Amino acid sequence: MSSLATTEPTVDDIRAAAERIHATIPPTPLLTSPALDKRVGGRILIKPECLQPTGSFKIRGATNFIGQLDTAARHAGIVAYSSGNHAQAVAFAASLVGIDATIVMPADTPPIKLENTKAYGAKIITYDRYNESREEIGADLAAKLGATLLPPYDHPWTIAGQGTAGLELMTQADAIGAEIDAVLIGCGGGGLTAGMSLAIKDARPQVEIYCVEPAGFDDTARSLVAGTRLTIEPGQRSVCDALLGPMPGILTFPINHRLLSGGLTVSDEHALAAMAYAFTTLKLVVEPGGAVALAAALNRCFDCAGKTVAVVLSGGNVEPSLLCAALKN
Amino acid sequence: MSSLATTEPTVDDIRAAAERIHATIPPTPLLTSPALDKRVGGRILIKPECLQPTGSFKIRGATNFIGQLDTAARHAGIVAYSSGNHAQAVAFAASLVGIDATIVMPADTPPIKLENTKAYGAKIITYDRYNESREEIGADLAAKLGATLLPPYDHPWTIAGQGTAGLELMTQADAIGAEIDAVLIGCGGGGLTAGMSLAIKDARPQVEIYCVEPAGFDDTARSLVAGTRLTIEPGQRSVCDALLGPMPGILTFPINHRLLSGGLTVSDEHALAAMAYAFTTLKLVVEPGGAVALAAALNRCFDCAGKTVAVVLSGGNVEPSLLCAALKN
Repeated sequence: MSSLATTEPTVDDIRAAAERIHATIPPTPLLTSPALDKRVGGRILIKPECLQPTGSFKIRGATNFIGQLDTAARHAGIVAYSSGNHAQAVAFAASLVGIDATIVMPADTPPIKLENTKAYGAKIITYDRYNESREEIGADLAAKLGATLLPPYDHPWTIAGQGTAGLELMTQADAIGAEIDAVLIGCGGGGLTAGMSLAIKDARPQVEIYCVEPAGFDDTARSLVAGTRLTIEPGQRSVCDALLGPMPGILTFPINHRLLSGGLTVSDEHALAAMAYAFTTLKLVVEPGGAVALAAALNRCFDCAGKTVAVVLSGGNVEPSLLCAALKN
Repeated sequence: MSSLATTEPTVDDIRAAAERIHATIPPTPLLTSPALDKRVGGRILIKPECLQPTGSFKIRGATNFIGQLDTAARHAGIVAYSSGNHAQAVAFAASLVGIDATIVMPADTPPIKLENTKAYGAKIITYDRYNESREEIGADLAAKLGATLLPPYDHPWTIAGQGTAGLELMTQADAIGAEIDAVLIGCGGGGLTAGMSLAIKDARPQVEIYCVEPAGFDDTARSLVAGTRLTIEPGQRSVCDALLGPMPGILTFPINHRLLSGGLTVSDEHALAAMAYAFTTLKLVVEPGGAVALAAALNRCFDCAGKTVAVVLSGGNVEPSLLCAALKN
């Protein structure tokens, strides 16, 4: 598997992933909102990945990955490290096929994500997000247990799984006669962005794709400009807990560098306001990190005027107290 | 129109309504949730009408009604009385075709519904929900203005419009190979229940349909048992502000009496808990009145074990403060 892990997935891999996950992961819908269209002066197609079984797109990659493990590997179990959404996805996907999952999670993960991960039957090991390496802890643990490490983004099986959201988006846009001009995708390690971009560009090469990151965690945006993988500045904080990766992935970055038109950055304030807008107007529960693409559209960080723009709401696992505080502003 | 107003709509009327509203009101999706299925021990198909443009199914009836008005009637404008969701729907549907709308609303309507209705450009007139008759105020106003009164449920055009949700449900269930055993529908005046039931029973006569009402406002449940229209007891209160009608409709009741298997009642506490469940697990924003069908499933007021049950989430226009209070419990 180690050689495979350095190979980009193809669009055929994404199609195979779609076949593989279809039985357990139904497509998310493609939604529209006249109020949102009016607000931005364009036509917005909303891909609400928050409606997935574990509340984020991560279930696509986890299900695709586990679906490709052989019997011996399944028996040995899996290990994952995650800020929360990948953790829940891996725990849920593992529970569906009855295999053991151990998840390494930051100690400051929102309680809702910790509790949900436990509820799916996974073992949890916490670490200090700012002073310990989750990659090292995860690799050590996998070696000790003889288990397979399920990377959150930097693996072709993970990327191909996330890419199924791009296949769906293009099919669903076609079905309603929408010709997409641009796609905005929230970006942490870049797995969703890379996977979706492969599928989207294959279907319609002229689509402009932008990743969206929280201020302070714009490692992909800056790396795209520099043409090489850069890390975030030390000491950054953001309310977008799903998007706090330190640098673009080894496998995801070349894909994103080749296919993206650029990287956009939104403030925490704008991410929270977009989350509140999703609640009030779209009737969708979105977490701050899941709302950054919507924030970019709402604040004209990307100008949607006169365009058809797909906006991915990548996750919805928000602490009620955080959303309720945002709704008061 | 007065003779038409006493005639039941047919399934062909509902199909015509679907054609009529299709351009402006796209179908809501049909969603599933493994967590919900596990919780109730059955297969639940979620019809999230909260995702409609104005946050409730009411946009279907309003759009269908206005679509059937001739030029002279459109020029004279429309009047509606509503606890809020019908108001927003009528205001929005009127704004789409550029006609005047005046809405009679209870003074204690949740501010979010009042504000949204105003935002669509409608004129608002408030009244005392417990001491004045909205029907009288609405009729007087329509006569004075020469405008058309757009009834919230007791009109064949309204019922046919709401029925389009039933057509969609059956088509979408077919598409995923689901054979529906039962449907749970929140019920105020009975327009959604009647319209959906006509479409559902036509497609699959063996489906059992239940209306769901808040405790104290179980006028339809009791009327179904009595075989005649009964009013609520005076002095009732419920947090389900969308479902506080005093008695079943003249036109809706005979349809519901003929087609429903019975009426279910849920407490305010259970409606609020279902609203919180929709937030936490389904990632959908649902108002208390929109959550009563889900409440009936969650609390085994209707036992979903081993069955395929469609649950309609009829609206999502909840005050953030109310939802946030419910999430703390």
